[in-house]
Amino acid sequence: MDQDYATLLGSCPVPFQGATEVLLGHGSGGKLTADLIERLFLPAFQNPYLAKLDDQAVLELQGMRLAFTTDAFVVTPIFFPGGDIGRLAVNGTVNDLAMSGARPLYVSAAFILEEGLWLADLERIVRSMQEACATAGVMLVTGDTKVVNRGSGDKVFITTSGIGIIEHALTIAVDGAQVGDRIILSGTIADHGMAVMSKREGLEFETEIVSDTVALNSLVASMLEGSAAIHCLRDPTRGGVATTLHEIARRSQVGIVLEEQCIPIREEVKGACELLGIDPLYVANEGKLVAIVGREAAEQIVERMRGHRDGQAARIIGEIVADHPGMVVMRTGIGGSRIIELPMGEQLPRIC
Amino acid sequence: MDQDYATLLGSCPVPFQGATEVLLGHGSGGKLTADLIERLFLPAFQNPYLAKLDDQAVLELQGMRLAFTTDAFVVTPIFFPGGDIGRLAVNGTVNDLAMSGARPLYVSAAFILEEGLWLADLERIVRSMQEACATAGVMLVTGDTKVVNRGSGDKVFITTSGIGIIEHALTIAVDGAQVGDRIILSGTIADHGMAVMSKREGLEFETEIVSDTVALNSLVASMLEGSAAIHCLRDPTRGGVATTLHEIARRSQVGIVLEEQCIPIREEVKGACELLGIDPLYVANEGKLVAIVGREAAEQIVERMRGHRDGQAARIIGEIVADHPGMVVMRTGIGGSRIIELPMGEQLPRIC
Repeated sequence: MDQDYATLLGSCPVPFQGATEVLLGHGSGGKLTADLIERLFLPAFQNPYLAKLDDQAVLELQGMRLAFTTDAFVVTPIFFPGGDIGRLAVNGTVNDLAMSGARPLYVSAAFILEEGLWLADLERIVRSMQEACATAGVMLVTGDTKVVNRGSGDKVFITTSGIGIIEHALTIAVDGAQVGDRIILSGTIADHGMAVMSKREGLEFETEIVSDTVALNSLVASMLEGSAAIHCLRDPTRGGVATTLHEIARRSQVGIVLEEQCIPIREEVKGACELLGIDPLYVANEGKLVAIVGREAAEQIVERMRGHRDGQAARIIGEIVADHPGMVVMRTGIGGSRIIELPMGEQLPRIC
Repeated sequence: MDQDYATLLGSCPVPFQGATEVLLGHGSGGKLTADLIERLFLPAFQNPYLAKLDDQAVLELQGMRLAFTTDAFVVTPIFFPGGDIGRLAVNGTVNDLAMSGARPLYVSAAFILEEGLWLADLERIVRSMQEACATAGVMLVTGDTKVVNRGSGDKVFITTSGIGIIEHALTIAVDGAQVGDRIILSGTIADHGMAVMSKREGLEFETEIVSDTVALNSLVASMLEGSAAIHCLRDPTRGGVATTLHEIARRSQVGIVLEEQCIPIREEVKGACELLGIDPLYVANEGKLVAIVGREAAEQIVERMRGHRDGQAARIIGEIVADHPGMVVMRTGIGGSRIIELPMGEQLPRIC
């Protein structure tokens, strides 16, 4: 380690949870990721947009509110039941925009290709992105392609960024949860993560587990048409519903109580989770959203969501409480309760 | 190859210059890159923004003109004389915005980290990005971090995207060159590419070759203040000045004549190119621009550029002609002339 590095490390008074190297867990969305963001990125790029720690920045530009977001996709395998890295990349960026209540408009894509990738695979991914753009009603307007030598990448990584316009007056943000609010989940959990894991591990079930990857902007538009009592929207991707709720509890400084028996999960997904020893609450979803909404409006919003193809299994799964701010507690089926911890590291690497 | 792939390949009547796999050259910015864009990306994402093939999309949004761009950075080594991958990523995106005449405002960054990267290296890169943002006057407002397992990446890849606002009425685009226009180059060529190559190859020269990476938005703003006769701006990165001029000639359907003795190059860079057998006209620059401007305004624009710290060596290097549309011809010092070809593949992989 040369002197420059020592000086830099020295300038970071508490080392990153004891780590001196990047660990897989730094990409998990859990504690290590939060650590990296709060110790490194936030102090470096001090500005009010980034400090909000939302999945998108909401920018004021000549009286217009724009949402702007970016996400890198490194999922392996690149093709999985129900989708592929291209579809995931478009839907993921569309969803990050939609979670601010924005109407997604434009998307960019930057490809990092590994030398030796089959052009037919790339073509299949690009067609899938095209379909996803058409379904979501967005245009892919700019892009870039880089190639790295064999062994310096892994087939294909895609970074999508997006711009959307916010056409309502609400502020929908991760720090918007209020005591008394209800927590709505738009459908079954853990489908995406377990679809990728099953494919990766070569598991076979009677019913194939299929990724839920879908663009949620249409569902969000419908919710916004029906109610102004939407305080926070998040798509529980990396780290699953547990990690998303943690972020909301922490950033809004409220407590969260979940009802275990209200959380919808498919039988085959539950089975796969048990087989692999994975808690489905921590598994990535790519077509679900968590909404924190006003108590009075909650039932009506759920009804409206159920009338939409992407929210048919929507349910109220819990509420926001004043007790235990920053903590997520789950009431279990048998009357007990347990604390849902923020995971330290990575239980399912490269899931998105 | 399963049937799906065969069908897809079959749907591509002329295979990609005979290739069935991604080659390093597909990321070169040369013929293979053009091939990929024109055979794969353009037909898939048919829209007028992408079809312009500019380095940024210019979007109309409620009467406002926004520029939007993205670029992936995979340079190796990640630290090189004069810069690093982080500085390059910020400046590259700022420059792509500036080349539409936009004022760059907001930047996003998506990191793909390889497990095992030194956190001190990441910190050094992030600090460098912070400095680059401050210098260029842009805010990094949103980001993402993914980690791939050891051997599936190469230390760090960074994709930056950016948004800028166009505050003038000009249309500055790659198809804007007109017969009689003059071609201005803002400074010496090949500095960035040869700085990276020298570091990679362990070459030492009496005078160290240093990357020219810099944000060009200030220089562009000054040029726009001084003249409305700016028809096209490009930063000659991957593939160098030769590739950039080819794109302009082809997209504007004009011929280009260059004067070899007018093209500025540092002695040590020239020496390094000769040593490595590389034509500097094809080597990446990261702090230079090519401007196609009206004949009458050309001298005055050059004067103005020379008064700016980033354009001190600006020169007129050639002109736009009606002859040989789509071709670039160089008049050599001894009175001859040679055709400057678009390179097929990649002479310097992973230079940016």
